[in-house]
Amino acid sequence: SAQRSLWVRTITHCQKEHLSTKLLPEELPPDFLRAVTCQVCDHLLADPVQSPCQHLFCRSCILKFNRALGSHCPACTLPYDVSDLTSPAKAFLGILHSLPLLCPKEGCGERVKLDSFRDHYHDHFCKENTNEEQNNAEQNLDCYLPVNKGG
Amino acid sequence: SAQRSLWVRTITHCQKEHLSTKLLPEELPPDFLRAVTCQVCDHLLADPVQSPCQHLFCRSCILKFNRALGSHCPACTLPYDVSDLTSPAKAFLGILHSLPLLCPKEGCGERVKLDSFRDHYHDHFCKENTNEEQNNAEQNLDCYLPVNKGG
Ligand SMILES: [Zn+2]
Ligand SMILES: [Zn+2]
Ligand SMILES: [Zn+2]
Ligand SMILES: [Zn+2]
Ligand SMILES: [Zn+2]
Ligand SMILES: [Zn+2]
Ligand SMILES: [Zn+2]
Ligand SMILES: [Zn+2]
Repeated sequence: SAQRSLWVRTITHCQKEHLSTKLLPEELPPDFLRAVTCQVCDHLLADPVQSPCQHLFCRSCILKFNRALGSHCPACTLPYDVSDLTSPAKAFLGILHSLPLLCPKEGCGERVKLDSFRDHYHDHFCKENTNEEQNNAEQNLDCYLPVNKGG
Repeated sequence: SAQRSLWVRTITHCQKEHLSTKLLPEELPPDFLRAVTCQVCDHLLADPVQSPCQHLFCRSCILKFNRALGSHCPACTLPYDVSDLTSPAKAFLGILHSLPLLCPKEGCGERVKLDSFRDHYHDHFCKENTNEEQNNAEQNLDCYLPVNKGG
């Protein structure tokens, strides 16, 4: 798992782009968590695509994964063609984008929907408007990286 | 799977009480479906409880299952004590109760949240107010029973 975490970082480089499951306000059931996380990077799904074997990945992750390791599914190893990736059901995307995340900015503690989280979070720092704090913000989000999640 | 379906019916008798995944408006990803369905009866979770191994069941299903087959988890066979069943995270319950279901009443086609589905559906027949139609309503919901879902 530590090993997997390592190669994922070297292939996807998505730590600063994607959101960690640690932003969820409570410990959700593992089966549910797996259903909303990328089977490549373990972050919350970002712009997800679905394989013919019906597993889900961030679009950028599966493309990088395929380029590095060939086009088989990272979850079940089934081979498939990249052109067979489809968009997940709209009802599923609605649920994903409405997941409540807990803003980690000190003193905020607001629950923000996943699809407006990034805007909300960055607003904290745009208002304060210094480069130094912008950097802190990014470091802060890094603390919510998933590590050693098993599987 | 046909066999499992059979013993589940003889143990849980929940066909008229629980809602089928077929009421969901689209084909959701299988991992997500599994996360919102009872690991005993395969219906959408009704009054769910969570085991120490973090699997989810309708409260009535797991109690009937335990009485018939002993208190081990139907999903992973881990033994546990009934007193260790807990309530799932509130954020998860919120998502479950907000799942959009498609009303199967002819001519309606409304999308209704899971937690108000039963009221909505029965209203169609209370308004018409005949015993015969009440019975038809129940038979109608029966058509949405899950059958042979595999696993
Ligand atoms: Zn990622
Ligand atoms: Zn990813
Ligand atoms: Zn797969
Ligand atoms: Zn905030
Ligand atoms: Zn049931
Ligand atoms: Zn059940
Ligand atoms: Zn279990
Ligand atoms: Zn209706």
